[in-house]
Amino acid sequence: MTTPWYFVAVLLTILTSSQGILTTLSQSNGGYKYDYATVPFLAEVFKLIVSGLFLWREMRTSSSTTARITTDWKSIRLFVIPSLIYLIHNNVQFATLTYVDTSTYQIMGNLKIVTTGILFRLFLKRKLSKLQWMAIGLLAVGTTTSQVKGCGEASCDSLFTAPIQGYLLGILSAALSALAGIYTEFLMKRNNDTLYWQNLQLYTFGSLFNVARLIADDFRHGFEKGPWWQRIFDGYSITTWMVVLNLGSTGLLVSWLMKYADNIVKVYSTSMAMLLTMVASIYLFSFKPTLQLFLGIIICIMSLHMYFSPPHTLVDLPVTNEAHPKTLKQVVVEEKTDS
Amino acid sequence: MTTPWYFVAVLLTILTSSQGILTTLSQSNGGYKYDYATVPFLAEVFKLIVSGLFLWREMRTSSSTTARITTDWKSIRLFVIPSLIYLIHNNVQFATLTYVDTSTYQIMGNLKIVTTGILFRLFLKRKLSKLQWMAIGLLAVGTTTSQVKGCGEASCDSLFTAPIQGYLLGILSAALSALAGIYTEFLMKRNNDTLYWQNLQLYTFGSLFNVARLIADDFRHGFEKGPWWQRIFDGYSITTWMVVLNLGSTGLLVSWLMKYADNIVKVYSTSMAMLLTMVASIYLFSFKPTLQLFLGIIICIMSLHMYFSPPHTLVDLPVTNEAHPKTLKQVVVEEKTDS
Repeated sequence: MTTPWYFVAVLLTILTSSQGILTTLSQSNGGYKYDYATVPFLAEVFKLIVSGLFLWREMRTSSSTTARITTDWKSIRLFVIPSLIYLIHNNVQFATLTYVDTSTYQIMGNLKIVTTGILFRLFLKRKLSKLQWMAIGLLAVGTTTSQVKGCGEASCDSLFTAPIQGYLLGILSAALSALAGIYTEFLMKRNNDTLYWQNLQLYTFGSLFNVARLIADDFRHGFEKGPWWQRIFDGYSITTWMVVLNLGSTGLLVSWLMKYADNIVKVYSTSMAMLLTMVASIYLFSFKPTLQLFLGIIICIMSLHMYFSPPHTLVDLPVTNEAHPKTLKQVVVEEKTDS
Repeated sequence: MTTPWYFVAVLLTILTSSQGILTTLSQSNGGYKYDYATVPFLAEVFKLIVSGLFLWREMRTSSSTTARITTDWKSIRLFVIPSLIYLIHNNVQFATLTYVDTSTYQIMGNLKIVTTGILFRLFLKRKLSKLQWMAIGLLAVGTTTSQVKGCGEASCDSLFTAPIQGYLLGILSAALSALAGIYTEFLMKRNNDTLYWQNLQLYTFGSLFNVARLIADDFRHGFEKGPWWQRIFDGYSITTWMVVLNLGSTGLLVSWLMKYADNIVKVYSTSMAMLLTMVASIYLFSFKPTLQLFLGIIICIMSLHMYFSPPHTLVDLPVTNEAHPKTLKQVVVEEKTDS
């Protein structure tokens, strides 16, 4: 792989940012005309097809010795775990929202950055310097700062007044979200299997779980609108299709990053994407720019710099050619000596 | 001097924080019963007396060879400059407030942190690492974050809508405030004169300028309430005297820091004091704790850590005794080898 990871990271930032904008554009009168649950399903199918095509091309061009594919069921079954974690996560998320409002939930979502760092250390045994830990903490603080409710907005008393269960579930939700990412990174890096084969396994389970969800939704609503496959594209517009393609593409990029970079890179990409979406919304949806968004952007850019810069460029004192600074006294003494 | 600088810095933080609280407590019905302009004057006189006593004690106990006193007028006259800068600063501040409201002025006041760093580099030629520059930037961002207006508070449209002159004067004000500090540090460090003699010169000019201000106020109001010396203690309570003593004491500590530490230490002390005042106000004046105060505190503590920690403790990877992390595959391979 010769594609540099930061190129993929920047692409992921742009596409993730577009995702929020496209989703907003796909709404009409503040709601969805289509069944939103069909979007992640179709995105999984898109990723499955793309990965299948890439795998087919790789199998055809490379000799049988270089094609790295582990077809052992003991290996394949591990790929169901990310889907299982997401399933639990969705239920915890639902439970959390019965205790806290959506803006408190959004604020707590930034905890995911910190839990990812912790699981990255504990589960993948990756060591980080104190400065990198501080950078991760600052990234969470920066994204939270940008989301602080501005003046004139509704009261935010809710933030400190939710029942304790809400906060505990919020922490659990952040831990599960991080765990899914960390486990996927473990899966992608545990052997030298080709990325497309790993993706194929991941997205097969992903598609199955999404179908199960659509069926479960049908049962929950008593099939009053008919089975999901009869109305899957109902209300779809060009924009909806763009949402699907965009979500699928970001998934493929995340998968690439899990194999060739890591979860921290992904976390930076998606955090920067959130800020980019907010800036774009100022122009696209006439959002009011706030001081806290400006501060959040500065904090996150500093955090990015702290995490990824070579350490010596940060802590070395600058070397300059200028003479040692003279104090006024030294200048006076020298003048006297000269005369 | 064996007192460690961080001890003085912590003391300054506590006293500066008390200053805000005492000043609030000295008010009655949201206003001052006493003439507030008398407070800095009496604080200058207090500092002058304390420095005089300390100087007298030092002169008496030390032999004439160790008493370091420069009585050259060319040296003494330099001590008028900080007072001159503060005079200009006060007028610029007044002009700024005709363009921007007080909360915008307060937010812009955090620029002083950055201008102090810049003048520290330019005027005192002190080199800082990139990380220290980032720490200074973060300190300004952190204090600003803590001041972001919360939900339910009045509209803050004013922040981005003031005329350009307001922002330019705000920057000039921040530069002058930093210049006064940087120039004082230059004065205190340019020779080995004893601190108390340097203070004596500084506070003599300080007292004179404050008297001049009281007289000017009298002329401006046409002596309608009589000359200042007849009503200097009018409306003074125990709390007002504590405000005076506190202001005088913080001045003496700042002076000590200028000679034995530097402006950056002072800036950290006063920034931390501002946050401490806000936290104390939650308990003392039933202020509502805000998310932005919490975030600001985290940012400033990280900044403190980044600026003052020995660099290698920040960037070195932790060394542990644990074996190299095993991937699942390695474990499997090893198990096979074992059997």
